[in-house]
Amino acid sequence: MKILALDSSGLVASVAVVENDNLIAEYTMNHKKTHSQTLVPMLDEIRNMIELDMATIDAIAVAAGPGSFTGLRIGSATAKGLGLALNKPLISVPTVDGLAYNLYGSDKVICPLMDARRNQVYTGLYEFVSISEKNTFEMKHIVEQCAVDIQEIVDKINELGREVIFLGDGVAVFAEKLANMINVPYSFAPACCNRQRAACVATLGQVYYEKGMIQTAVEHAPDYLRLSQAERERAEAQKNA
Amino acid sequence: MKILALDSSGLVASVAVVENDNLIAEYTMNHKKTHSQTLVPMLDEIRNMIELDMATIDAIAVAAGPGSFTGLRIGSATAKGLGLALNKPLISVPTVDGLAYNLYGSDKVICPLMDARRNQVYTGLYEFVSISEKNTFEMKHIVEQCAVDIQEIVDKINELGREVIFLGDGVAVFAEKLANMINVPYSFAPACCNRQRAACVATLGQVYYEKGMIQTAVEHAPDYLRLSQAERERAEAQKNA
Repeated sequence: MKILALDSSGLVASVAVVENDNLIAEYTMNHKKTHSQTLVPMLDEIRNMIELDMATIDAIAVAAGPGSFTGLRIGSATAKGLGLALNKPLISVPTVDGLAYNLYGSDKVICPLMDARRNQVYTGLYEFVSISEKNTFEMKHIVEQCAVDIQEIVDKINELGREVIFLGDGVAVFAEKLANMINVPYSFAPACCNRQRAACVATLGQVYYEKGMIQTAVEHAPDYLRLSQAERERAEAQKNA
Repeated sequence: MKILALDSSGLVASVAVVENDNLIAEYTMNHKKTHSQTLVPMLDEIRNMIELDMATIDAIAVAAGPGSFTGLRIGSATAKGLGLALNKPLISVPTVDGLAYNLYGSDKVICPLMDARRNQVYTGLYEFVSISEKNTFEMKHIVEQCAVDIQEIVDKINELGREVIFLGDGVAVFAEKLANMINVPYSFAPACCNRQRAACVATLGQVYYEKGMIQTAVEHAPDYLRLSQAERERAEAQKNA
Protein backbone atom coordinates (compact mmCIF):
# COMPACT_ATOMS: atom_id res chain seq x y z
CA MET A 1 0.00 0.00 0.00
CA LYS A 2 1.30 3.44 -0.97
CA ILE A 3 0.29 6.49 1.08
CA LEU A 4 0.95 10.14 0.34
CA ALA A 5 0.85 12.23 3.50
CA LEU A 6 0.69 15.96 4.22
CA ASP A 7 1.06 17.88 7.47
CA SER A 8 0.71 21.66 7.56
CA SER A 9 -1.07 21.88 10.89
CA GLY A 10 1.59 23.95 12.62
CA LEU A 11 4.69 25.94 11.69
CA VAL A 12 6.08 22.80 10.07
CA ALA A 13 5.24 21.85 6.49
CA SER A 14 5.88 18.19 5.72
CA VAL A 15 5.21 15.82 2.83
CA ALA A 16 5.95 12.08 2.68
CA VAL A 17 5.37 8.97 0.63
CA VAL A 18 5.34 5.65 2.48
CA GLU A 19 4.97 2.23 0.86
CA ASN A 20 4.33 -0.49 3.45
CA ASP A 21 7.43 -0.59 5.67
CA ASN A 22 9.41 1.82 3.50
CA LEU A 23 9.64 5.56 3.71
CA ILE A 24 10.20 6.38 0.01
CA ALA A 25 10.56 10.12 0.53
CA GLU A 26 9.99 12.78 3.14
CA TYR A 27 10.48 16.53 2.98
CA THR A 28 9.98 18.63 6.10
CA MET A 29 10.50 22.32 6.67
CA ASN A 30 10.12 24.60 9.66
CA HIS A 31 10.80 28.04 8.25
CA LYS A 32 9.11 31.41 8.11
CA LYS A 33 7.59 30.84 4.65
CA THR A 34 3.85 30.20 4.61
CA HIS A 35 2.41 26.80 3.73
CA SER A 36 0.82 28.16 0.56
CA GLN A 37 4.39 28.87 -0.63
CA THR A 38 5.87 25.55 0.45
CA LEU A 39 3.50 22.58 0.63
CA VAL A 40 2.69 22.00 -3.05
CA PRO A 41 6.23 22.89 -4.28
CA MET A 42 7.61 20.40 -1.74
CA LEU A 43 5.20 17.73 -2.99
CA ASP A 44 6.19 18.52 -6.58
CA GLU A 45 9.88 18.31 -5.65
CA ILE A 46 9.63 14.80 -4.16
CA ARG A 47 7.27 13.67 -6.93
CA ASN A 48 9.99 14.52 -9.46
CA MET A 49 12.83 13.11 -7.36
CA ILE A 50 11.20 9.70 -6.85
CA GLU A 51 9.53 9.69 -10.29
CA LEU A 52 6.17 9.16 -8.57
CA ASP A 53 3.22 8.19 -10.72
CA MET A 54 0.42 9.78 -8.67
CA ALA A 55 -2.04 7.16 -9.96
CA THR A 56 -0.17 4.48 -7.97
CA ILE A 57 -1.07 6.12 -4.64
CA ASP A 58 -3.70 4.19 -2.65
CA ALA A 59 -4.73 6.95 -0.27
CA ILE A 60 -3.90 10.46 0.90
CA ALA A 61 -3.34 10.94 4.62
CA VAL A 62 -3.58 14.41 6.08
CA ALA A 63 -3.02 15.89 9.52
CA ALA A 64 -6.61 17.00 9.91
CA GLY A 65 -6.43 19.15 13.00
CA PRO A 66 -6.25 20.67 15.46
CA GLY A 67 -3.69 23.33 14.59
CA SER A 68 -3.34 26.62 12.79
CA PHE A 69 -6.68 27.27 11.06
CA THR A 70 -5.02 28.52 7.88
CA GLY A 71 -2.49 25.70 7.91
CA LEU A 72 -5.21 23.08 8.32
CA ARG A 73 -7.22 24.60 5.47
CA ILE A 74 -4.20 24.50 3.15
CA GLY A 75 -3.44 20.88 4.08
CA SER A 76 -7.04 19.69 3.80
CA ALA A 77 -7.72 21.65 0.61
CA THR A 78 -4.60 20.16 -1.01
CA ALA A 79 -5.57 16.65 0.12
CA LYS A 80 -9.16 17.11 -1.11
CA GLY A 81 -7.94 18.38 -4.49
CA LEU A 82 -5.59 15.44 -4.89
CA GLY A 83 -8.24 12.98 -3.74
CA LEU A 84 -10.82 14.33 -6.17
CA ALA A 85 -8.40 14.49 -9.11
CA LEU A 86 -6.95 11.02 -8.48
CA ASN A 87 -10.21 9.48 -7.22
CA LYS A 88 -8.49 8.18 -4.07
CA PRO A 89 -9.71 8.03 -0.46
CA LEU A 90 -8.49 10.36 2.27
CA ILE A 91 -7.33 9.38 5.74
CA SER A 92 -7.93 12.00 8.44
CA VAL A 93 -5.13 11.67 10.97
CA PRO A 94 -5.68 13.66 14.18
CA THR A 95 -2.74 16.08 14.40
CA VAL A 96 -1.92 15.26 18.01
CA ASP A 97 -1.95 11.49 17.24
CA GLY A 98 0.56 12.07 14.44
CA LEU A 99 2.78 14.10 16.75
CA ALA A 100 2.68 11.41 19.46
CA TYR A 101 3.71 8.76 16.91
CA ASN A 102 7.18 10.37 16.83
CA LEU A 103 7.95 8.46 20.02
CA TYR A 104 6.95 5.04 18.69
CA GLY A 105 7.73 2.16 21.03
CA SER A 106 8.32 4.22 24.17
CA ASP A 107 6.98 2.84 27.46
CA LYS A 108 6.51 6.38 28.79
CA VAL A 109 3.30 8.40 28.56
CA ILE A 110 3.55 10.65 25.48
CA CYS A 111 2.16 14.16 25.79
CA PRO A 112 2.24 16.38 22.68
CA LEU A 113 1.77 20.06 23.43
CA MET A 114 0.76 22.46 20.66
CA ASP A 115 0.50 26.07 21.70
CA ALA A 116 -3.16 27.08 21.18
CA ARG A 117 -2.73 30.60 22.68
CA ARG A 118 -4.75 32.01 25.59
CA ASN A 119 -2.95 29.58 27.96
CA GLN A 120 -4.46 26.61 26.13
CA VAL A 121 -2.82 23.66 24.45
CA TYR A 122 -3.90 21.14 21.85
CA THR A 123 -2.83 17.99 23.60
CA GLY A 124 -3.64 14.40 24.51
CA LEU A 125 -2.02 11.46 26.33
CA TYR A 126 -0.82 8.32 24.55
CA GLU A 127 0.91 5.04 25.26
CA PHE A 128 2.37 2.30 23.08
CA VAL A 129 1.13 -1.22 23.77
CA SER A 130 3.01 -4.28 22.52
CA ILE A 131 1.03 -6.47 20.08
CA SER A 132 3.37 -9.45 20.34
CA GLU A 133 1.62 -11.68 17.80
CA LYS A 134 2.19 -8.98 15.17
CA ASN A 135 5.70 -8.01 16.35
CA THR A 136 4.59 -4.43 16.60
CA PHE A 137 3.31 -1.73 18.95
CA GLU A 138 -0.09 -0.09 18.79
CA MET A 139 -0.59 3.45 19.99
CA LYS A 140 -3.50 3.82 22.44
CA HIS A 141 -5.24 6.93 23.70
CA ILE A 142 -5.18 7.59 27.43
CA VAL A 143 -6.72 11.02 26.77
CA GLU A 144 -7.90 11.76 23.20
CA GLN A 145 -6.77 14.97 21.55
CA CYS A 146 -8.40 18.03 23.05
CA ALA A 147 -8.02 21.78 23.57
CA VAL A 148 -7.56 22.47 27.28
CA ASP A 149 -5.78 24.72 29.75
CA ILE A 150 -2.20 23.58 30.37
CA GLN A 151 -3.15 23.07 34.03
CA GLU A 152 -5.86 20.56 33.09
CA ILE A 153 -3.55 18.22 31.17
CA VAL A 154 -0.86 18.44 33.86
CA ASP A 155 -3.47 17.51 36.48
CA LYS A 156 -4.27 14.37 34.45
CA ILE A 157 -0.56 13.51 34.16
CA ASN A 158 -0.07 13.94 37.90
CA GLU A 159 -3.10 11.68 38.53
CA LEU A 160 -1.66 8.98 36.26
CA GLY A 161 1.62 9.12 38.18
CA ARG A 162 3.67 7.78 35.24
CA GLU A 163 6.82 9.18 33.60
CA VAL A 164 5.99 11.39 30.62
CA ILE A 165 7.78 12.68 27.50
CA PHE A 166 6.62 16.05 26.13
CA LEU A 167 7.02 17.21 22.55
CA GLY A 168 5.65 19.87 20.22
CA ASP A 169 5.89 23.63 19.83
CA GLY A 170 4.12 24.09 23.18
CA VAL A 171 7.17 22.83 25.07
CA ALA A 172 9.15 26.06 24.67
CA VAL A 173 6.06 28.09 25.66
CA PHE A 174 5.14 26.10 28.77
CA ALA A 175 8.46 24.56 29.98
CA GLU A 176 8.70 26.89 32.97
CA LYS A 177 5.05 26.38 34.00
CA LEU A 178 5.47 22.61 33.62
CA ALA A 179 8.46 22.60 35.97
CA ASN A 180 6.31 24.22 38.66
CA MET A 181 3.17 22.13 38.18
CA ILE A 182 4.32 18.59 37.46
CA ASN A 183 5.13 15.99 40.09
CA VAL A 184 6.16 12.97 37.98
CA PRO A 185 9.49 12.41 36.15
CA TYR A 186 9.39 14.04 32.74
CA SER A 187 11.57 14.89 29.76
CA PHE A 188 11.48 16.69 26.43
CA ALA A 189 11.95 15.01 23.04
CA PRO A 190 14.93 16.29 20.98
CA ALA A 191 14.94 17.90 17.52
CA CYS A 192 14.66 14.71 15.46
CA CYS A 193 11.35 13.69 17.03
CA ASN A 194 9.61 16.72 18.56
CA ARG A 195 7.53 18.18 15.72
CA GLN A 196 5.03 17.20 13.01
CA ARG A 197 6.37 14.74 10.44
CA ALA A 198 4.41 13.58 7.39
CA ALA A 199 6.14 10.18 7.72
CA CYS A 200 4.34 9.73 11.06
CA VAL A 201 1.03 10.81 9.49
CA ALA A 202 1.60 8.30 6.65
CA THR A 203 2.61 5.41 8.91
CA LEU A 204 -0.28 5.99 11.29
CA GLY A 205 -2.48 6.55 8.23
CA GLN A 206 -1.74 2.99 7.11
CA VAL A 207 -2.92 1.70 10.50
CA TYR A 208 -6.16 3.72 10.26
CA TYR A 209 -6.67 2.67 6.62
CA GLU A 210 -6.46 -0.98 7.61
CA LYS A 211 -9.17 -0.31 10.21
CA GLY A 212 -11.38 1.16 7.48
CA MET A 213 -11.08 4.71 8.77
CA ILE A 214 -11.22 6.40 5.37
CA GLN A 215 -13.29 9.19 3.82
CA THR A 216 -14.03 10.45 0.36
CA ALA A 217 -12.43 13.72 -0.67
CA VAL A 218 -15.91 15.30 -0.58
CA GLU A 219 -16.61 14.08 2.96
CA HIS A 220 -13.31 15.26 4.40
CA ALA A 221 -13.13 18.40 6.53
CA PRO A 222 -10.52 19.51 9.04
CA ASP A 223 -11.29 19.20 12.74
CA TYR A 224 -10.51 22.56 14.36
CA LEU A 225 -11.47 21.34 17.85
CA ARG A 226 -12.60 24.83 18.83
CA LEU A 227 -14.07 27.98 17.31
CA SER A 228 -11.93 30.37 15.30
CA GLN A 229 -11.21 33.83 16.70
CA ALA A 230 -13.71 35.39 14.23
CA GLU A 231 -16.47 32.93 15.25
CA ARG A 232 -15.72 33.45 18.93
CA GLU A 233 -15.86 37.24 18.58
CA ARG A 234 -19.12 37.12 16.62
CA ALA A 235 -20.70 34.86 19.26
CA GLU A 236 -19.58 37.26 22.00
CA ALA A 237 -20.89 40.28 20.07
CA GLN A 238 -24.26 38.54 19.57
CA LYS A 239 -24.42 37.65 23.26
CA ASN A 240 -23.68 41.26 24.25
CA ALA A 241 -26.15 42.71 21.72
CA MET B 1 24.08 25.69 17.55
CA LYS B 2 23.29 24.93 13.92
CA ILE B 3 24.23 21.54 12.46
CA LEU B 4 24.05 20.41 8.85
CA ALA B 5 23.83 16.62 8.59
CA LEU B 6 24.23 14.12 5.76
CA ASP B 7 23.51 10.40 5.61
CA SER B 8 24.20 8.40 2.46
CA SER B 9 25.42 5.25 4.19
CA GLY B 10 22.71 2.97 2.79
CA LEU B 11 20.01 3.07 0.13
CA VAL B 12 18.62 6.18 1.82
CA ALA B 13 19.95 9.65 1.06
CA SER B 14 19.11 12.20 3.73
CA VAL B 15 20.02 15.82 4.47
CA ALA B 16 18.95 17.89 7.49
CA VAL B 17 19.56 21.17 9.26
CA VAL B 18 18.97 21.24 13.01
CA GLU B 19 19.28 24.31 15.23
CA ASN B 20 19.23 23.39 18.94
CA ASP B 21 15.80 21.83 19.59
CA ASN B 22 14.44 22.68 16.14
CA LEU B 23 14.54 20.63 12.97
CA ILE B 24 14.68 23.46 10.41
CA ALA B 25 14.60 21.17 7.38
CA GLU B 26 14.98 17.53 6.44
CA TYR B 27 14.88 15.84 3.06
CA THR B 28 15.05 12.05 2.84
CA MET B 29 14.80 9.75 -0.15
CA ASN B 30 14.91 5.99 -0.58
CA HIS B 31 14.79 5.56 -4.32
CA LYS B 32 16.81 3.84 -7.02
CA LYS B 33 18.79 6.96 -7.96
CA THR B 34 22.44 6.95 -6.83
CA HIS B 35 23.65 9.26 -4.08
CA SER B 36 25.85 11.16 -6.53
CA GLN B 37 22.61 12.17 -8.29
CA THR B 38 20.67 13.04 -5.14
CA LEU B 39 22.69 14.16 -2.13
CA VAL B 40 24.04 17.53 -3.28
CA PRO B 41 20.85 18.49 -5.22
CA MET B 42 18.84 17.69 -2.06
CA LEU B 43 21.15 19.87 0.01
CA ASP B 44 20.85 22.65 -2.56
CA GLU B 45 17.05 22.30 -2.53
CA ILE B 46 16.72 22.77 1.24
CA ARG B 47 19.40 25.48 1.26
CA ASN B 48 17.21 27.49 -1.15
CA MET B 49 13.95 26.67 0.63
CA ILE B 50 15.14 27.78 4.07
CA GLU B 51 17.34 30.57 2.69
CA LEU B 52 20.31 29.06 4.52
CA ASP B 53 23.47 31.12 4.80
CA MET B 54 26.03 28.29 4.87
CA ALA B 55 28.41 30.49 6.90
CA THR B 56 25.98 30.28 9.87
CA ILE B 57 26.49 26.52 10.22
CA ASP B 58 28.54 25.53 13.27
CA ALA B 59 29.44 21.99 12.22
CA ILE B 60 28.76 19.31 9.63
CA ALA B 61 27.66 15.92 10.94
CA VAL B 62 27.96 12.90 8.69
CA ALA B 63 26.99 9.25 9.00
CA ALA B 64 30.56 8.01 8.81
CA GLY B 65 30.09 4.28 8.43
CA PRO B 66 29.64 1.41 8.27
CA GLY B 67 27.52 1.09 5.15
CA SER B 68 27.77 1.03 1.40
CA PHE B 69 31.40 1.86 0.56
CA THR B 70 30.42 4.12 -2.33
CA GLY B 71 27.65 5.76 -0.30
CA LEU B 72 30.02 6.47 2.59
CA ARG B 73 32.61 7.96 0.23
CA ILE B 74 30.01 10.29 -1.28
CA GLY B 75 28.76 11.39 2.15
CA SER B 76 32.24 11.88 3.63
CA ALA B 77 33.62 13.57 0.51
CA THR B 78 30.68 16.01 0.50
CA ALA B 79 31.11 16.71 4.21
CA LYS B 80 34.88 17.20 3.81
CA GLY B 81 34.38 19.57 0.88
CA LEU B 82 31.84 21.61 2.83
CA GLY B 83 34.03 21.61 5.94
CA LEU B 84 37.09 22.79 4.01
CA ALA B 85 35.21 25.46 2.06
CA LEU B 86 33.35 26.79 5.10
CA ASN B 87 36.20 26.19 7.58
CA LYS B 88 33.87 24.29 9.94
CA PRO B 89 34.47 21.16 12.01
CA LEU B 90 33.03 17.74 11.13
CA ILE B 91 31.23 15.36 13.48
CA SER B 92 31.62 11.67 12.62
CA VAL B 93 28.42 9.93 13.67
CA PRO B 94 28.63 6.11 13.60
CA THR B 95 25.93 4.99 11.14
CA VAL B 96 24.46 2.37 13.47
CA ASP B 97 24.26 4.90 16.33
CA GLY B 98 22.32 7.28 14.05
CA LEU B 99 19.93 4.48 13.09
CA ALA B 100 19.33 3.49 16.72
CA TYR B 101 18.49 7.11 17.59
CA ASN B 102 15.25 6.69 15.61
CA LEU B 103 13.80 5.00 18.67
CA TYR B 104 14.66 7.75 21.12
CA GLY B 105 13.25 7.26 24.59
CA SER B 106 12.35 3.59 24.26
CA ASP B 107 12.98 1.33 27.25
CA LYS B 108 13.57 -1.64 24.94
CA VAL B 109 16.95 -2.75 23.61
CA ILE B 110 17.42 -1.22 20.15
CA CYS B 111 19.08 -3.39 17.51
CA PRO B 112 19.71 -1.81 14.08
CA LEU B 113 20.40 -4.36 11.36
CA MET B 114 22.06 -3.26 8.12
CA ASP B 115 22.50 -6.01 5.56
CA ALA B 116 26.27 -6.42 5.03
CA ARG B 117 25.95 -9.42 2.67
CA ARG B 118 27.58 -12.84 3.21
CA ASN B 119 25.19 -13.49 6.15
CA GLN B 120 26.69 -10.56 8.05
CA VAL B 121 25.07 -7.47 9.51
CA TYR B 122 26.32 -4.09 10.60
CA THR B 123 24.69 -3.89 13.97
CA GLY B 124 24.99 -2.94 17.63
CA LEU B 125 22.83 -2.88 20.78
CA TYR B 126 21.64 0.34 22.41
CA GLU B 127 19.53 1.55 25.29
CA PHE B 128 18.18 4.94 26.37
CA VAL B 129 18.95 5.99 29.93
CA SER B 130 17.02 8.79 31.63
CA ILE B 131 19.15 11.80 32.66
CA SER B 132 16.54 13.29 34.96
CA GLU B 133 18.46 16.44 35.95
CA LYS B 134 18.58 17.39 32.25
CA ASN B 135 15.03 16.22 31.41
CA THR B 136 16.42 14.09 28.63
CA PHE B 137 17.55 10.59 27.66
CA GLU B 138 21.07 9.59 26.74
CA MET B 139 21.71 6.72 24.36
CA LYS B 140 24.20 4.16 25.70
CA HIS B 141 26.00 1.32 23.92
CA ILE B 142 25.39 -2.19 25.16
CA VAL B 143 27.33 -3.49 22.13
CA GLU B 144 29.15 -0.90 19.96
CA GLN B 145 28.60 -0.99 16.22
CA CYS B 146 30.26 -3.97 14.57
CA ALA B 147 30.16 -6.28 11.54
CA VAL B 148 29.16 -9.78 12.68
CA ASP B 149 27.21 -12.85 11.65
CA ILE B 150 23.49 -12.47 12.35
CA GLN B 151 23.76 -15.46 14.72
CA GLU B 152 26.35 -13.65 16.85
CA ILE B 153 24.18 -10.60 17.55
CA VAL B 154 21.11 -12.76 18.23
CA ASP B 155 23.17 -14.80 20.74
CA LYS B 156 23.98 -11.55 22.56
CA ILE B 157 20.31 -10.52 22.55
CA ASN B 158 19.26 -13.89 23.93
CA GLU B 159 21.92 -13.60 26.66
CA LEU B 160 20.61 -10.14 27.64
CA GLY B 161 17.09 -11.55 27.91
CA ARG B 162 15.42 -8.15 27.32
CA GLU B 163 12.75 -7.14 24.80
CA VAL B 164 14.24 -5.77 21.60
CA ILE B 165 13.14 -3.57 18.68
CA PHE B 166 14.82 -4.19 15.32
CA LEU B 167 15.12 -1.67 12.52
CA GLY B 168 17.09 -1.14 9.32
CA ASP B 169 17.29 -2.67 5.85
CA GLY B 170 18.50 -5.95 7.37
CA VAL B 171 15.08 -6.64 8.89
CA ALA B 172 13.51 -7.73 5.59
CA VAL B 173 16.57 -9.91 4.83
CA PHE B 174 16.77 -11.67 8.21
CA ALA B 175 13.18 -11.61 9.56
CA GLU B 176 12.67 -15.34 8.98
CA LYS B 177 16.01 -16.31 10.52
CA LEU B 178 15.33 -14.05 13.50
CA ALA B 179 12.00 -15.78 14.15
CA ASN B 180 13.83 -19.11 14.42
CA MET B 181 16.79 -17.95 16.49
CA ILE B 182 15.45 -15.44 18.98
CA ASN B 183 13.97 -16.30 22.35
CA VAL B 184 13.02 -12.88 23.78
CA PRO B 185 10.01 -10.71 22.84
CA TYR B 186 10.82 -8.61 19.80
CA SER B 187 9.24 -6.27 17.26
CA PHE B 188 10.05 -4.32 14.12
CA ALA B 189 9.98 -0.51 13.83
CA PRO B 190 7.52 0.90 11.24
CA ALA B 191 8.25 3.07 8.18
CA CYS B 192 8.55 6.41 9.98
CA CYS B 193 11.44 5.25 12.15
CA ASN B 194 13.19 2.26 10.59
CA ARG B 195 15.83 3.77 8.30
CA GLN B 196 18.62 6.35 8.24
CA ARG B 197 17.52 9.94 8.89
CA ALA B 198 19.83 12.94 8.73
CA ALA B 199 17.76 14.53 11.53
CA CYS B 200 18.93 11.72 13.83
CA VAL B 201 22.54 12.22 12.68
CA ALA B 202 22.21 15.96 13.37
CA THR B 203 20.56 15.56 16.80
CA LEU B 204 23.08 12.95 17.93
CA GLY B 205 25.80 15.08 16.31
CA GLN B 206 24.91 17.91 18.71
CA VAL B 207 25.40 15.52 21.65
CA TYR B 208 28.81 14.42 20.33
CA TYR B 209 29.79 18.03 19.55
CA GLU B 210 29.08 19.03 23.14
CA LYS B 211 31.39 16.20 24.26
CA GLY B 212 34.15 17.61 22.05
CA MET B 213 33.98 14.73 19.56
CA ILE B 214 34.82 16.81 16.48
CA GLN B 215 37.39 16.53 13.67
CA THR B 216 38.81 18.83 11.04
CA ALA B 217 37.71 18.20 7.47
CA VAL B 218 41.26 17.00 6.73
CA GLU B 219 41.25 14.49 9.60
CA HIS B 220 37.87 12.99 8.75
CA ALA B 221 37.66 9.60 7.04
CA PRO B 222 34.77 7.12 6.88
CA ASP B 223 34.90 4.02 9.05
CA TYR B 224 34.18 1.02 6.81
CA LEU B 225 34.43 -1.46 9.71
CA ARG B 226 35.71 -4.17 7.36
CA LEU B 227 37.72 -4.58 4.15
CA SER B 228 36.15 -3.82 0.78
CA GLN B 229 35.52 -6.69 -1.64
CA ALA B 230 38.51 -5.58 -3.77
CA GLU B 231 40.84 -5.50 -0.74
CA ARG B 232 39.56 -8.88 0.48
CA GLU B 233 40.06 -10.46 -2.91
CA ARG B 234 43.56 -9.03 -3.25
CA ALA B 235 44.52 -10.32 0.21
CA GLU B 236 43.18 -13.78 -0.70
CA ALA B 237 45.03 -13.76 -4.04
CA GLN B 238 48.26 -12.79 -2.27
CA LYS B 239 47.75 -15.55 0.31
CA ASN B 240 47.17 -18.12 -2.44
CA ALA B 241 50.11 -16.93 -4.55
